[in-house]
Amino acid sequence: MSQIELDQGLADELAEAIGAEHVLVDPDLRAGFEHDLTGRFDGQALLVARPATSDEVSRVVRLCGKRGVPIAVQGGNTGMVGGAIPRPGEVVLSLVRLDDLGPVDTLAQQVECGAGVTLERVQERAREAGLDFPVDFAARGSATIGGLIATNAGGSLAARYGMTRAWVAGLEAVLADGSIMRRLRGLLKDNAGYDLTGLLVGSEGTLGIVTRARLRLTPLLPARAVGLFAFASIEDAFALLDALRARAPSFQAADYLHREGMELVCTHRGFPQPFRELHDTYVVVECAGQDDPTDELGEAAALAEDAILDSAIATDADGRRALWAYRESHNESLSSRGVPHKMDVTVPLASVPSFERDVRSEVVAALPDAEVFLYGHLGDGNVHVNVLGPPPDDRTVDDLVLRIVAHYGGSISAEHGVGVAKARWLSLTRDDAEIAMMRAIKRALDPQSLLNPGRILV
Amino acid sequence: MSQIELDQGLADELAEAIGAEHVLVDPDLRAGFEHDLTGRFDGQALLVARPATSDEVSRVVRLCGKRGVPIAVQGGNTGMVGGAIPRPGEVVLSLVRLDDLGPVDTLAQQVECGAGVTLERVQERAREAGLDFPVDFAARGSATIGGLIATNAGGSLAARYGMTRAWVAGLEAVLADGSIMRRLRGLLKDNAGYDLTGLLVGSEGTLGIVTRARLRLTPLLPARAVGLFAFASIEDAFALLDALRARAPSFQAADYLHREGMELVCTHRGFPQPFRELHDTYVVVECAGQDDPTDELGEAAALAEDAILDSAIATDADGRRALWAYRESHNESLSSRGVPHKMDVTVPLASVPSFERDVRSEVVAALPDAEVFLYGHLGDGNVHVNVLGPPPDDRTVDDLVLRIVAHYGGSISAEHGVGVAKARWLSLTRDDAEIAMMRAIKRALDPQSLLNPGRILV
Repeated sequence: MSQIELDQGLADELAEAIGAEHVLVDPDLRAGFEHDLTGRFDGQALLVARPATSDEVSRVVRLCGKRGVPIAVQGGNTGMVGGAIPRPGEVVLSLVRLDDLGPVDTLAQQVECGAGVTLERVQERAREAGLDFPVDFAARGSATIGGLIATNAGGSLAARYGMTRAWVAGLEAVLADGSIMRRLRGLLKDNAGYDLTGLLVGSEGTLGIVTRARLRLTPLLPARAVGLFAFASIEDAFALLDALRARAPSFQAADYLHREGMELVCTHRGFPQPFRELHDTYVVVECAGQDDPTDELGEAAALAEDAILDSAIATDADGRRALWAYRESHNESLSSRGVPHKMDVTVPLASVPSFERDVRSEVVAALPDAEVFLYGHLGDGNVHVNVLGPPPDDRTVDDLVLRIVAHYGGSISAEHGVGVAKARWLSLTRDDAEIAMMRAIKRALDPQSLLNPGRILV
Repeated sequence: MSQIELDQGLADELAEAIGAEHVLVDPDLRAGFEHDLTGRFDGQALLVARPATSDEVSRVVRLCGKRGVPIAVQGGNTGMVGGAIPRPGEVVLSLVRLDDLGPVDTLAQQVECGAGVTLERVQERAREAGLDFPVDFAARGSATIGGLIATNAGGSLAARYGMTRAWVAGLEAVLADGSIMRRLRGLLKDNAGYDLTGLLVGSEGTLGIVTRARLRLTPLLPARAVGLFAFASIEDAFALLDALRARAPSFQAADYLHREGMELVCTHRGFPQPFRELHDTYVVVECAGQDDPTDELGEAAALAEDAILDSAIATDADGRRALWAYRESHNESLSSRGVPHKMDVTVPLASVPSFERDVRSEVVAALPDAEVFLYGHLGDGNVHVNVLGPPPDDRTVDDLVLRIVAHYGGSISAEHGVGVAKARWLSLTRDDAEIAMMRAIKRALDPQSLLNPGRILV
């Protein structure tokens, strides 16, 4: 019973600090914060705290710290690795109320915002000013900037623009002791001491809670063309990638999917098949520029014409969206079929075809009933491995796939992070000295292991 | 006497570990490692150790650690903040023998090299493969990749390409306990745990000793044009910057200098004055592309013609070098006149003119005989403040200038780092929580304070 009394004490203190209506104890109200989109991760929270300012976040951290109650930090809850889902007894600290979005600083090409602002709102604000925030992915309407930063989110444009870390000019974060670090000047050159901003980016809430950010923007490229191309294999698709790199400066994304993904998405979403026949491999290509890049896309495609089995190009917004939807509907369509084992990994680009062959054959050998869906980003060797069939808690397929990744010199996480999903496999692709460094840094900055414990490091 | 016996013991152990000829005890042999280019920093080393491999570096670190002897890590010794110069009794660990340079991986557009390879050798190797390493500055012939990484070197191309951190795809480093972390896969997307590579970049040898790196390369832009433009003020020069940003995608560098710097350089180097009259402000602009960017540079200049008082453009290599020399000869010319107080700082771009006015008036008010030389990088607010006159140990001018930097919301170091020169002023532009984080990380990774103690953090 002392546990419950203690919790009520914490709830009362939190209510005083941030307002009773922002401390959710009722199971019905908590429910939306306790499970993720993939359906694979859930956990019962002690309560959910929804502070509205950095100072309130600091108060929540101090109150939890005083009682040693661990915190699960949550943004838009679109993560894929269970990092934002509470483990039993954790307080969920939701940042969605830190949703202040500043005006665009057009001289510096930067914008400042709270951690709870969605990616889509930042993109819209930037575009109104003739600029753009060049990190993009399907969950843009829900994913928050704090979450993007915590996970160093990637997405379709990463091969051209880099990951989120490259676009963070400054941060504010609440540390494990409740102190607040602010580094929001947005200076382009600043070598005064360690790059704490870069360290916090991608640390998955384990070293500090990002509460505010100053983001870099890039000139808006208003003219876009999207093409869908079909190939007999992923090797054949490399011919188009080479041509785009060599001849199309406007080239900014090339995502691929395979036959089984196309069938799944068309069935689930009711989309028409894009071409008369089904093909082994499809690539969605986007080009963007000040001027219409359609010709440039067409010229690059012409160079790869021997490899291209069929194609469609769209320049209007609806048409572009329709082509992207074949790729972007994968997560939702997979979830409609069951709880997939999702493994977001990188291997060196040249190894992608062999990696995919090995994954298909070894998974099916180990689990004959499993279904394998592979898709990803052609430019950077990032493959999203999804397996339907094994129960959520079964680790056979995760272990098998991540070992193949290590064999090819890849990384167990390309862009989703480690979370709880992959923590046990970290040593497959980070060496002992690196893991010792990570542990030392975690202990130094969060000696109580208060912030997102069990994520990244078990 | 026990001190000397102890040192001889260390020297003997080091000689056994890396070869007697690579342990320099003789004062004549040590001398070149004990003072810097600026003439402001020197210190007597216990000895100089010159290991040739990462394993040898590890052995040196373990042997020094066993006896608690601190280490000064040194590359090409071109630093400006005294970071690589031994404090009395330190062992200099010179990395110049780690000079292995691998072949260019043209598919990944990367190259791997030892920490002791010079910037110039990397640039040459990349260019032979049709690629380039886009960090560049005057000391390219001596500065080593390890030093560039330790200081997150900037340079003239940073406004277009970013600083060194953006071009490090992977690192190997020897840590304070002698362990070696290796992360040399060069994956474009890798979110498996903390960004230790990014943390080590710019940590000035205080958290680990970079022994090897995998560098990203960019397509070589073989056609170049360099222009020298004269203005009545730095405000007027912004008109050219705006025009270049808006109209010249080939624009990659705009460095500026003032009248007093032009006079100094022409006198010291025997250069002709570039124009009939002396002007207040000069800007060296470089454009680069696949095709000759001279027209683009000319068109941008035409947009700023009301502000431009005189100009010269060069497209051949000798002519380009001659125009750059007006800017790149500053350090050497200043050193010929005395020991300058060098303060490499950033302020927000819009504040550069007021900042420069304040610095000139306040320095002369405080020290009437001081001479102030200001130059820097126009695109990113990076001003190199150089003051001749006050004795090397006098801190008046440093304190005064760095407080003006803080007043304008800048950083006490743009690209040179903190070293020993600025450590006492770190709190001017980093807040308490940040400094506490830095100290905690330093303690966690180097509990004995063995690696470059007193640099960054006092």
